[in-house]
Order: sequence, then C-alpha cells, then structure tokens
Amino acid sequence: MALSCEVVAVGTELLLGQIVDTNSAWMGEHLAAAGIDSHYQVKVGDNQARIEAAIRAALARSDAVICCGGLGPTQDDITREAIAAVMGVPLERDPDMVASIATFFRGRGREMAANNERQADKPVGAAFIPQTMGTAPGLICPVDGKVIYAVPGVPHEMEDMLERAVIPDLRRRSGETAVIRSRVLRTWGLAESTLAEKVAHRFDRLEGIIGAPTIAFLASGPAGIKVRVTVKAADAATADRALDEEEAELRAVLGDVVFGVDDDTMESVVGTLLRKRGLTLGVAESLTGGLIGARLTEVPGASEWFRGSIVSYASDVKYTLLGVPDGPVVSASAAEAMALGAMRALGADVGLAVTGVAGPTEQDGMPVGTVFGAVHLDGTTSTHELHLPGDRERVRWYSTISLLDALRKRLLADAPG
Amino acid sequence: MALSCEVVAVGTELLLGQIVDTNSAWMGEHLAAAGIDSHYQVKVGDNQARIEAAIRAALARSDAVICCGGLGPTQDDITREAIAAVMGVPLERDPDMVASIATFFRGRGREMAANNERQADKPVGAAFIPQTMGTAPGLICPVDGKVIYAVPGVPHEMEDMLERAVIPDLRRRSGETAVIRSRVLRTWGLAESTLAEKVAHRFDRLEGIIGAPTIAFLASGPAGIKVRVTVKAADAATADRALDEEEAELRAVLGDVVFGVDDDTMESVVGTLLRKRGLTLGVAESLTGGLIGARLTEVPGASEWFRGSIVSYASDVKYTLLGVPDGPVVSASAAEAMALGAMRALGADVGLAVTGVAGPTEQDGMPVGTVFGAVHLDGTTSTHELHLPGDRERVRWYSTISLLDALRKRLLADAPG
Repeated sequence: MALSCEVVAVGTELLLGQIVDTNSAWMGEHLAAAGIDSHYQVKVGDNQARIEAAIRAALARSDAVICCGGLGPTQDDITREAIAAVMGVPLERDPDMVASIATFFRGRGREMAANNERQADKPVGAAFIPQTMGTAPGLICPVDGKVIYAVPGVPHEMEDMLERAVIPDLRRRSGETAVIRSRVLRTWGLAESTLAEKVAHRFDRLEGIIGAPTIAFLASGPAGIKVRVTVKAADAATADRALDEEEAELRAVLGDVVFGVDDDTMESVVGTLLRKRGLTLGVAESLTGGLIGARLTEVPGASEWFRGSIVSYASDVKYTLLGVPDGPVVSASAAEAMALGAMRALGADVGLAVTGVAGPTEQDGMPVGTVFGAVHLDGTTSTHELHLPGDRERVRWYSTISLLDALRKRLLADAPG
Repeated sequence: MALSCEVVAVGTELLLGQIVDTNSAWMGEHLAAAGIDSHYQVKVGDNQARIEAAIRAALARSDAVICCGGLGPTQDDITREAIAAVMGVPLERDPDMVASIATFFRGRGREMAANNERQADKPVGAAFIPQTMGTAPGLICPVDGKVIYAVPGVPHEMEDMLERAVIPDLRRRSGETAVIRSRVLRTWGLAESTLAEKVAHRFDRLEGIIGAPTIAFLASGPAGIKVRVTVKAADAATADRALDEEEAELRAVLGDVVFGVDDDTMESVVGTLLRKRGLTLGVAESLTGGLIGARLTEVPGASEWFRGSIVSYASDVKYTLLGVPDGPVVSASAAEAMALGAMRALGADVGLAVTGVAGPTEQDGMPVGTVFGAVHLDGTTSTHELHLPGDRERVRWYSTISLLDALRKRLLADAPG
C-alpha cells in the first residue's frame, strides 16, 4: 500500500492568479516517481484558519502533507503558526537556528533583520530541515502517526529540500520499494475520440489487472495529443519493460501518428531527421507569419539544419523574393513555387512552404481556414491542402504543426534504406 | 458579503505534474476581478470517488464550485458522473445536444465517434452552457441552494465559458448590484519593484478610503508587467470615471513605459502606430527565428502594414539576402545593415532587425544574451544593445518584445505634429 502525500501550497498570490503554482506540479511529478501517491493538491491563501483547515483536511485523508510557502520573515508568513496549531503545541525559538540565520546574513555582508528570527521558530516536537540556499529552514512535524512537512515557496529551495529530506523521509516511512514510471507518446493527426477508439481494446484488456499499465489522453492543442502510459512495478527495470511492451502495442495500432516520445516535440523530431540525413531546410511562410521558423529555432542547435525562413506576408514579396508567378497566392501551385523559391533563395536542400487564409476575412475567394502547403525533398514536391476550423490563432498554429508533420512524414518515407 | 467560489481542477496529469494548472490561476484572477472570493483551489485526479469528495468538501465551505476538466469523450472523463453523484441524480442524454455535437463534426467533414455522445449527458436538473469552440458543453448544476459549474480543461474553451456564463451567473446569485470594473495598464521596461516604488504614493493615498481604486501588479513575462486598477462603484459610469482618473495619475508617473491598455499588445500598438502614419514594415530576424513576424501577424489586418520578415538564421543568408558585409554577425553594424537590407528586400518604409546570441553556446566571442537591434525610420537608423538574462527561450522572447518596444518608441518620437 503506497503512502499518500498531499500538497498544500500557501499564498494569496496563488489564488489571485498573480503567480502560477508550478511548485505543486514539480512535487507531484517527483512524488510519483518515488512511488508516493498524491491524490489531492490544494492552494490556500495567507489566512491561518484556512491553512489549518487545509492541513487538517489533508491529514484526514492522507498519510502526509507537504506545506509549501509561508515560511518567510514577514507578518503574512504564518505556515509555522498554522502547523503548530494543528499539532496542538506551541512554537519554540531555536537559538542554534537563530545563529545559523545570522551567519547566513553576515556571509552576504548584511545585518539580520529582527523579523528573520521568526524563521528559527519550530513547533515543539518538530525537526528542522537545514536550509542550504536561503534563510528559511524547512520542518518535519510528526503528528498522530502521520507527518507534516514545511518547505519554502522559492522553487529552487523547495526542490532542494524535497529531494534531500522530504522524499527520503517519506520513502523510509512507507517501507515501500515500488516505483511508478510513465511514458508519453506524442501524436498528431487524430482527434482524441478517434485515438481512444483505436486503443479501446488496450483499456479493455488491462481493466482490472493489478499492476497493469494505465492509459490516459492529454489534448495539448497545437502540440498534439499526448497518450500517457503509467505503470507501477517492484523496480525500475520491470517498470521500464512494461512501458516498452505497452509502447510497442500502441505504436502497432497508431503507426506514424506517433511522432515522438516524452520530451520530443514536432520541431525537435523534424530537426533530428534532417540532421541524420545531413539536409538543410529553407522555409517560406505566409499566413503563419514566422511561426514555423520560430518553432524550429526553439530547438537548440537548429543552426545545423535550419537556414532560415522568408515570411512573405505581402503578395508581391512572394513574386519578387520567391519567384511565385503572378496570380492568386492561396493555391497549391503558389505553395509549390514558394517551397522551391525558399530552397533557392536560402540555399537549402529541402523547401517547406505554407500559404493560406488565417482570417478575419476571406482572400482570393477562399474561405478562412483554407491552407496550402508544399514540401520539396529529393527532387519531388508534394502539396497539402488543409481546411482548418477555428479562429485566426488556431488556423495559424494548426497550419504550423500540420506542415511540420507533412515534412516529417516525407523525411520518414524518403529515408534511404 | 461576497460570494465564495472554489475551483476543482480535474486531471491525473495535473497531480503528476505533466501539465501545470494555469487554468485555476486564470480563474482566480477573473473571479477576484468580479468581486468573488476564492479561498481554496484543489487539484484532483481522474478518480470518481475523489472528485466527488473534492466537490463535497468545496460545497461545505463555499457557495459555489467550478470543476474544470474531465468533460472529454474518453473513459477517463468522469466529471459529469461525479457531479451527478454529488447532486444525487442520474445523468440524462440530451438529444438536441447530441445533434449539435454531430453538426460540429459534420462542419469539419468528420463523422462523430460514438463516445462523443457522452458529452451530451447532463445531471437531471442541470443546464448546459453551450459550447462555441469545441465539442464539450459546460454545465450549471444547482444543488441545495448552491451551485456546481463544469467547464472544459482546454484553456480557451474554459475562458470563454467563464466570461460568458459562469461569472455572470455568479454575479446574479450574489445579488450584488455594485459594479466592479478594472483596467490594465500594460507596461514594458521597468522591474516590478521599480514600478511599485514609482506608484507607492498612490497606494498610500488610497489606503483605507472605501471605494477607492486598488492597484495590483501582474508580472507577465515577455508580455510585460500589468498594472491592474480595480474599482467598485454603484454604476458603470461612476466606476469608469474613477478608472479614467486613476489611469491619468499613473500615466503621469510612468510615462511611455505604459505601452497600452487592457487588450492592447505590444504588436497591436506598433501596428496602430504604423497604420496611422501609412507606413509599412519589413523585418530581419536572426536569433528570434520568426518570433517578431509571428507576433506582428497575430494582429488581424496586419497585411495593411506588415510586408514580411527575412529570417536569416544562417550567417551567409544575412550576406546574400540582406547585404550584410562579411564579418561578425552579432554586432550593432550587422543589425543596422540587416534593418536596411530588410527594408529594401521587402519593399518596406521602415526596417527592424535583431541579431544576437540565444544560446546554448556563445557566438562570435559574444556571451549568451548579447543582442543587437536596429530600427530604420525616416532616414535614421537607431541601434539598441541588450544584455538579457536567462535561458534560450527567455532571450528570444525578451529580444522580441524589447525590439518591438524600441520601434514603438521611435514611431512615437518621430510622429509628425
């Protein structure tokens, strides 16, 4: 039975949306990797009664709680007080910790402000997690056979204390050695519902089998749909083997709809394929306005295979810089001429082009969402006609990933051997 | 007494940290702006018993709950079932909604999968929030004098439903007639602490005055820092008058650091300035890879003033297409030549260029974060040297907005009259 541990993130700024709570996500990821279940994560403001209520609710349903934030020196930092109240004990000031904080300030040539002494307070019966980078120590607070941890809200301080103290302590308490691993298959080209139907037999097969992988879908807009496989096993090798098997099964069903795994992006995959074949890419963009170039150059080292992009937003730029024949510029033949023109003008081996109508109004008699793309590779130009739903932003983003996907499939199909 | 509304974000991927829950932050910000308190926000996985428990706990301490996510068509989308269980009623399938979803798919030339019909289910007694952009409708579910809302987890669908249906419904329930209005001044160029110092006298003056505007800062990364002024008044005209006065006070202090208001973006403001003067723009980009063009063309109607961009990622593209003299390409003189080259090659009135080192490694002996930009306008070229902190992504994004801001200031300064 896995230990369960909730996260209580403390800070009014989190509730008001002035800061996005990325800490809880980081903790959730690392708790899961350590085989610890996290069933709930809560955000609460700088209000002592509500922090206490959040901790009590978490302790009632889980084995442990990590409170994140509210350990600073100011009057609205009240996590220490709230934990002491839940434990039913007073706070005591630790003279060694006061000295340690004073040393920290002296090391930076500063005087410790009086209110920093509050950071040396701990509930009676609790232990400090020594700080390494900031002034606030963390806390390990046993309570009725369960445990409350407190860590600072500054991300790198929180991460350090979680890895160094909290997760090892939780693993010790759990006595459990199981690991949880997951793998994400990145897909493009099928709706979530179609994906789900295609892999429904996997759900059915796995239903009710203890320890079987679970499958979930994550629609991620213009980044495609992620298919996440999660497995719990006695050790990392067994978990990885189960993931390998499930990935193979899913790939057999989904084919080249799967463009990558885990941290792969469409642009990193395209870059890898180009680099492997020693090819360089030149792009001509119209309605996407530079998005294709911007995405490709997110990949570190893109200069190895990306020459550049000509954003020919005005029609006559297509004629003069890309050699597109006079006439309608939203057409398959214009896309074809743009791909060739980009290749030539940019001195690239491969040409990719996109032209179309992003809106708000139609163009050349073509409705919003009409998009033509072209890929020139190995002496052959393929053209791609899309009819995309949605507003201007969606049309531009979906054009971008769709055309990168078309290039990916050409690079896969034309790969020698 | 303000109404209180909690957020329950549903999705195992949120707990596992595979997606950061930005939706709750967005909702928290917009609920606060509407005068609705949000004291707790909870994340829970795709587990019906735990979703039910989270909703029950939220309803016990607040007037309303917004469930976000879990309305998709797949097996792990169970928010509808959980809400029905909390209400103690069965789900019923709405034939009109089935037809509406089928129409959505037909409009896109696709067949509706059978499992999409589940999205037409609603708890008996609930009302739909019609979808406008996706397939999943939202839900308004009255229960024991309180209310549960359900909205999709896809951000733009969630945002649309919150603004269109959830917040107006909450305001109606609160019985509050006071109007809460806010206005956001968009700024670029000052750190949050500096902004805060500059307007500190406004805070002090307004402190404790009932009905006085409140001021908050929202650091928004490469979109700048937002200064939000919020006011509560008996009617819209009074509220707007107070906002106008406060905006004038703040502008007097902050000057041209304020680049726009509310939905203005740096690119829309630049576009407006160009259009007013009847000028067209040509861009040359290196490290930004197309981001400047992509941002400018987010503005509907950009074709009136945006000619295009030459993304000269490879150095020799700068020499051949832009006429940059052979030599180091990370320099003020290269940026200057690029701006002139872009203007000429793209047939534009104004030239904007950026070159620099985004990382991961140095270039031309220049460290990561070194960026040179140039603006050519009215026969004069200004150059701009930046030393930006952060990783590749930050350097690229901050370069983009910094150079657009430089162009904005030139357009303002050189404006005739």
